[in-house]
Amino acid sequence: MKPISEIVKKKPWFGWFLFFCTMAVVFLLGLFASSVMERRAEAVFAYKPTVKINENEPRNEIWGKNFPREYQSYIQTEDTSFKSMYNSSNNDDMLAHYPRLVILWAGYAFSKEYNQPRGHLWAVKDVRDILRTGAPKNENEGPMPGTCWTCKSPDVPRMMKEMGIENFYKATWASLGKEIVNPIGCADCHDAETMNLHISRPALIEAFQRTGKDITKSSHQEMRSLVCAQCHVEYYFKGDSKYLTFPWDKGATIEDMEKYYDEIKFSDWTHSISKAPMLKAQHPDYEVFKMGVHADRGVACADCHMPYVNEGGVKYTNHHIKSPLSHISKSCQVCHRQSEEKLRTNVYERQKSVFQLRDKAEELIVKAHFEAKAAWDAGAKEDEMKDVLTLIRHAQWRWDFVAAGHGNSFHAPLECSRILGTSIDKAQEARLLLSRILAAHGINKPVAFPDFSTKEKAQKIVWPDLEKMKADKKVFKETIVPKWLQQAKERESKYPVSSFL
Amino acid sequence: MKPISEIVKKKPWFGWFLFFCTMAVVFLLGLFASSVMERRAEAVFAYKPTVKINENEPRNEIWGKNFPREYQSYIQTEDTSFKSMYNSSNNDDMLAHYPRLVILWAGYAFSKEYNQPRGHLWAVKDVRDILRTGAPKNENEGPMPGTCWTCKSPDVPRMMKEMGIENFYKATWASLGKEIVNPIGCADCHDAETMNLHISRPALIEAFQRTGKDITKSSHQEMRSLVCAQCHVEYYFKGDSKYLTFPWDKGATIEDMEKYYDEIKFSDWTHSISKAPMLKAQHPDYEVFKMGVHADRGVACADCHMPYVNEGGVKYTNHHIKSPLSHISKSCQVCHRQSEEKLRTNVYERQKSVFQLRDKAEELIVKAHFEAKAAWDAGAKEDEMKDVLTLIRHAQWRWDFVAAGHGNSFHAPLECSRILGTSIDKAQEARLLLSRILAAHGINKPVAFPDFSTKEKAQKIVWPDLEKMKADKKVFKETIVPKWLQQAKERESKYPVSSFL
Repeated sequence: MKPISEIVKKKPWFGWFLFFCTMAVVFLLGLFASSVMERRAEAVFAYKPTVKINENEPRNEIWGKNFPREYQSYIQTEDTSFKSMYNSSNNDDMLAHYPRLVILWAGYAFSKEYNQPRGHLWAVKDVRDILRTGAPKNENEGPMPGTCWTCKSPDVPRMMKEMGIENFYKATWASLGKEIVNPIGCADCHDAETMNLHISRPALIEAFQRTGKDITKSSHQEMRSLVCAQCHVEYYFKGDSKYLTFPWDKGATIEDMEKYYDEIKFSDWTHSISKAPMLKAQHPDYEVFKMGVHADRGVACADCHMPYVNEGGVKYTNHHIKSPLSHISKSCQVCHRQSEEKLRTNVYERQKSVFQLRDKAEELIVKAHFEAKAAWDAGAKEDEMKDVLTLIRHAQWRWDFVAAGHGNSFHAPLECSRILGTSIDKAQEARLLLSRILAAHGINKPVAFPDFSTKEKAQKIVWPDLEKMKADKKVFKETIVPKWLQQAKERESKYPVSSFL
Repeated sequence: MKPISEIVKKKPWFGWFLFFCTMAVVFLLGLFASSVMERRAEAVFAYKPTVKINENEPRNEIWGKNFPREYQSYIQTEDTSFKSMYNSSNNDDMLAHYPRLVILWAGYAFSKEYNQPRGHLWAVKDVRDILRTGAPKNENEGPMPGTCWTCKSPDVPRMMKEMGIENFYKATWASLGKEIVNPIGCADCHDAETMNLHISRPALIEAFQRTGKDITKSSHQEMRSLVCAQCHVEYYFKGDSKYLTFPWDKGATIEDMEKYYDEIKFSDWTHSISKAPMLKAQHPDYEVFKMGVHADRGVACADCHMPYVNEGGVKYTNHHIKSPLSHISKSCQVCHRQSEEKLRTNVYERQKSVFQLRDKAEELIVKAHFEAKAAWDAGAKEDEMKDVLTLIRHAQWRWDFVAAGHGNSFHAPLECSRILGTSIDKAQEARLLLSRILAAHGINKPVAFPDFSTKEKAQKIVWPDLEKMKADKKVFKETIVPKWLQQAKERESKYPVSSFL
């Protein structure tokens, strides 16, 4: 073969021909590379915006147009099929399962109706339907403040921006019924512009600030728990404006929070049987999770409750938030090499151990409430009863802290057992003091307890007028709620949606 | 070059020369390979017998001639420098650290003297020197039976073979003093012929048999815990022959063993303050270890307490048995990827959590003992006190089960907390019943407790004649013990030792 230089010498056009051929190949290679990169980018981000998401867009289905996979998994939170260790289902009637809860919460709305929690998709409907929120006949009626909506809906940040935070809290719950209709969803955790995780609720930001921490400095991995900590925490309604507040100023252990509440003399209600000034623990899931080994090892809530999924080469986060026991292979087994059966057994063993102490604490605190009533009935005076009532308050606070959380007995079983051990001690100490008080008033024998072996029997002791409450609630659901929904529909129909298509 | 065939055709001797050269090379290669294999074999087994080890050879230094590395690490069990979380050392006076132990064990020898345990090398000396074993003046005097020696020495299997098991147990402790001189060592866990791990103590074999299990079917990994389980368990002295027995017939949980003891109406002693029929938990290390996550994951005692060492290409098991916290890199970090500091902190956190409940249980049980005494003093009758005494028995059994073990609060912190939670409940229940009994006898106020804030003050309540015991012990140590040692020396000097050198 002749060298190219010789050919070019003879036929100069051949040089140009070669040059253009090379350019064409380089151009085609560039096109190909760009196409590959685009496909990869698509696979990584899975984000092809279809519509523009406006700030404070509350409708999850609008976000879902841009994020079909996340949305489709999110709406599966409607599923209530997962069974716990004791075969109880989501939304089960907990007061029927454990009638002594009626006694423990006597005088507080939780003893009217309390169900096993279920998925985020139910949040608004369930808080509307439950007896605890009462049956307001108009916008000005109670019993609940706006604060009660705080954790239920992405309509909340929208309304907080519109009304101001404090005005939102101190409004009546009923006045916001027509506004709060979309269940917990996208805008609660994501920024509409960047899609980054963000904190939409002021209470968490403020709790960080009060202990000198800046939540905006949190890492992405921390945010994968902190977005949950906006709601899955212990909180209370502070002052007349019912300002949502986390009691973390002295720390987040049970003792720290107890000290906080004691110093400000806060109580959620006065127990209708024992007259003790009670604390209701909410669901301190985040605090207890932080006390366990998984948090200690840097695991985030989303790692187990929202594990990554690979679907057709696309990796996304499963938004069907639920018990990791329903997808052990995608949660536990990412780190643990044991079989599914072994890991499930390990979880159940821990839970059973904690539940034994929880049951004992419940039994003893119930007795203490009735024995305190017997002491009052026998003529005990307030100064005689003071220490007893404090012991009952502290014993039940400890029990409730463990019992009220969603996965506490797994997240930090040792800490839960420690807390319950001190609960048992305090309940028994109260009973010991009560036996001396009773003896001083002429009664030196065990107190006879009424029959509270079923929910109905227990509620008859606590709420003689429950049937009326149920009837009122029925009217509320049939007359008020449909109006709220209609008003919301009309309002939302006017929202702008700009399509990119 | 010419082909070899042509050379051979011309010079036939060259063929033979080549043949022998090849043979020589093959032979040298064989020699080299054999030498490499021998070196590897040496590295793996590290066993070049120097002397023949006779069956039941009790002297650890004789075994040490064949196993210098194991022996040299074994004699380091003399070391008492390791500090616990609370900076307490081996052999520390525990009654001085925790004076309320004197009250808890009132009337039982443990309240005379009780020290932090130390290494195996001290076993015989420490059991001889402690006040608990008394000061026998001759072979026939008590107070202890031969059973007390069972876990202290490889002289024990030797003597059991000589005397028979039952005769060994029921002999006086003093009559065996001249025989039991070598501290816990080689023959306790190893077969003299095969060097395999073996069970030298009948109690463990019998406990397995009674529940239908054959201990000889155990795997090597199981044996690496079971040799420890010969001694590090809960046990009692059964019947008049003081037959060493493990109470595992109904299972090895605290409830199983309690039921076992209750059914046979066994008690270790009657409490000198409350008159309760008490159980003394020994050191249920193996049982509690089996309830924890490490056992659940197939880890053996030796994995953490006797980790493998590599020394000059030789791998052997470190026989300086001690807390894994003193060699975290060789124990924990074989599986765990966290830093030493993090892992140590994790252990301390678990222990602190359990110790909080342990301390609370102690405080309450001590009160119950004194309140029971006050009830007896006020004229309470046996049938009034029966339930109280059972509650005190069960509460203290639970506390002691957790407190007496060496690493219980780490091995199974959750189970320990569960047990302590029930201990607290029962102690308080006893106190509640006692308050009613006291009130029935005209006393309706808190019982005043004597001052037991130091070991000395506490022992003055419990052992008015302790100084005499100490004086007697001094005489025993100065007159009887030297004789035992002299007799043992003469006996052992006649033992045959066949050298292989």
